[in-house]
Amino acid sequence: MDSNEHPRARIGGWLGGLPQRVDVYEVGPRDGLQNELRTLPTRDKARLVEALVAAGEKRIEVTSFVSPKWIPQLSDAEELLRLVGRKPGVVFSALVPNLKGLQRAREAGLQEAAVFISASEAHSKKNINKSIAEALEASREVATAAAQMGMRVRGYLSTVWGCPYEGEVPVERVVDICRRLVDMGLYQLSLGDTIGVGTPRQTEEILSALLKYIPLEKLALHLHDTRGTALANALVGLSAGITTFDASIGGLGGCPYAPGAAGNLATEDAVFMFQGMGVETGINLDRLVEAGELAQELIGRKLAGKFLQAALGEREKKASRRART
Amino acid sequence: MDSNEHPRARIGGWLGGLPQRVDVYEVGPRDGLQNELRTLPTRDKARLVEALVAAGEKRIEVTSFVSPKWIPQLSDAEELLRLVGRKPGVVFSALVPNLKGLQRAREAGLQEAAVFISASEAHSKKNINKSIAEALEASREVATAAAQMGMRVRGYLSTVWGCPYEGEVPVERVVDICRRLVDMGLYQLSLGDTIGVGTPRQTEEILSALLKYIPLEKLALHLHDTRGTALANALVGLSAGITTFDASIGGLGGCPYAPGAAGNLATEDAVFMFQGMGVETGINLDRLVEAGELAQELIGRKLAGKFLQAALGEREKKASRRART
Repeated sequence: MDSNEHPRARIGGWLGGLPQRVDVYEVGPRDGLQNELRTLPTRDKARLVEALVAAGEKRIEVTSFVSPKWIPQLSDAEELLRLVGRKPGVVFSALVPNLKGLQRAREAGLQEAAVFISASEAHSKKNINKSIAEALEASREVATAAAQMGMRVRGYLSTVWGCPYEGEVPVERVVDICRRLVDMGLYQLSLGDTIGVGTPRQTEEILSALLKYIPLEKLALHLHDTRGTALANALVGLSAGITTFDASIGGLGGCPYAPGAAGNLATEDAVFMFQGMGVETGINLDRLVEAGELAQELIGRKLAGKFLQAALGEREKKASRRART
Repeated sequence: MDSNEHPRARIGGWLGGLPQRVDVYEVGPRDGLQNELRTLPTRDKARLVEALVAAGEKRIEVTSFVSPKWIPQLSDAEELLRLVGRKPGVVFSALVPNLKGLQRAREAGLQEAAVFISASEAHSKKNINKSIAEALEASREVATAAAQMGMRVRGYLSTVWGCPYEGEVPVERVVDICRRLVDMGLYQLSLGDTIGVGTPRQTEEILSALLKYIPLEKLALHLHDTRGTALANALVGLSAGITTFDASIGGLGGCPYAPGAAGNLATEDAVFMFQGMGVETGINLDRLVEAGELAQELIGRKLAGKFLQAALGEREKKASRRART
């Protein structure tokens, strides 16, 4: 380690070999809206999805086929997918907790579904009322059935950076669960910093441990910006070669109990940083701001995404300058 | 460059040799409050400075000795410093635009002052009504006089990552200005991403260019979080060995014309990330949250700092849980 007595510059190189292009996997309509207090009319959800597609987003998790008893906000999954229809080049996905959900997703015309596993026993119990072993078994059933249907399955692994109930989560357990999920045939594992406690060194440690066993292209990062570190963690992932990053329009999601507290990494913040570094996303930032503005309008509150607020502020400033002259 | 066809993991090592300790240079009371629409009573400013000291902050820019005609919010500089008094182990500083300001700072008992230079001609003219050459000359006068008084001088170089009027700022110009400032005897140069447009690759390029001529320990980063990238840029600086980071309590400052838009990197967000990576700051996060809460109370609005909002949200949640049981 460098000590402060003898500082030495160590610069250059580590950002030299970034991926040329990354995929942004949009989770706003599902992960975001499910955490909002206000339930939107299905038509409004469809408008939001349309706006995301118009911005160039190509991978969007639209809804969840869970029992309406659990998440009433998402009970209109079939109707929403019907309203949205198919979009050339866009892959829609939905969360499915079990075989019944997968069947519904298939009937609604989806080619991709996602399953949910927690790396913490306590979080798994509280969140989906299953032990980790039971969640893995449910995932295996879904993965096997999906393969027969010709659908592909993505896995969310949550609490990888820490658990609200158990605190630290051993990285060996994360590695073990990920190996099982890959063996089941999941095409991608999205590693979740569910409560947004991750720092870059921890991100490096987690990725270092995983990449001994899991191929790079199987991994995605699902970062929360609760304490402002999501982009710094994304930078570590990017420099390691990760090419899929989950994000939510405007940072939609947040914590309904804490107005102002941030949730998911905001799609615009991620796209701004990636494109500013020459890493292509295929997404148009101006249109993304329009989608973010629409999201704010629909849910009736300001979102936490910083690029969005800066862009809207700039526009307001210009408008008031015009009004004065 | 890695292509997406042949992804290869490149992990490990680049976060291995971080500094063991960094200094956070607090700019909230000066840079922050000067950008607020509401002018605080001097007593309230003093309370905020006390709260920052109580959190363990050791370097605080308290005010500015500019003409009250320019920034009436800071016309109480002498009174504020009298109220705050001396604190063992804490270095207070103030911005001084010229010899008169330096003289006032000295009479108020300060051992450190800061000068301001812009890397963009248009920004320099609009902001301080001086050309870059004139600003450099004023800095030289201050630096020479300060040396005779036994005071040390810090330099802010603004618009290093981009200018709101000129757009891109050539890095060669930044290097040239920095070399002159070091030659004048400034003990530290704080590189400013004044409008918060920086991305990590640009940060790496700027630091690479500067570190050929400027000793590492002379450089500090003054990052704005307008588009969410401040911590990612700080991470690049940290990995290059930079050990001083400017920050503002709660992200105080922002842009008064755009409520919700972020300004300075929030002190708590920086301290959370640094300490979470094992990089010591000597600052207590809980006390910092108390200072942030006080800042919100005093200026009468929510601040943009994410750690602060998350911490306050957690507390609210706990309180409502207690109320229910």
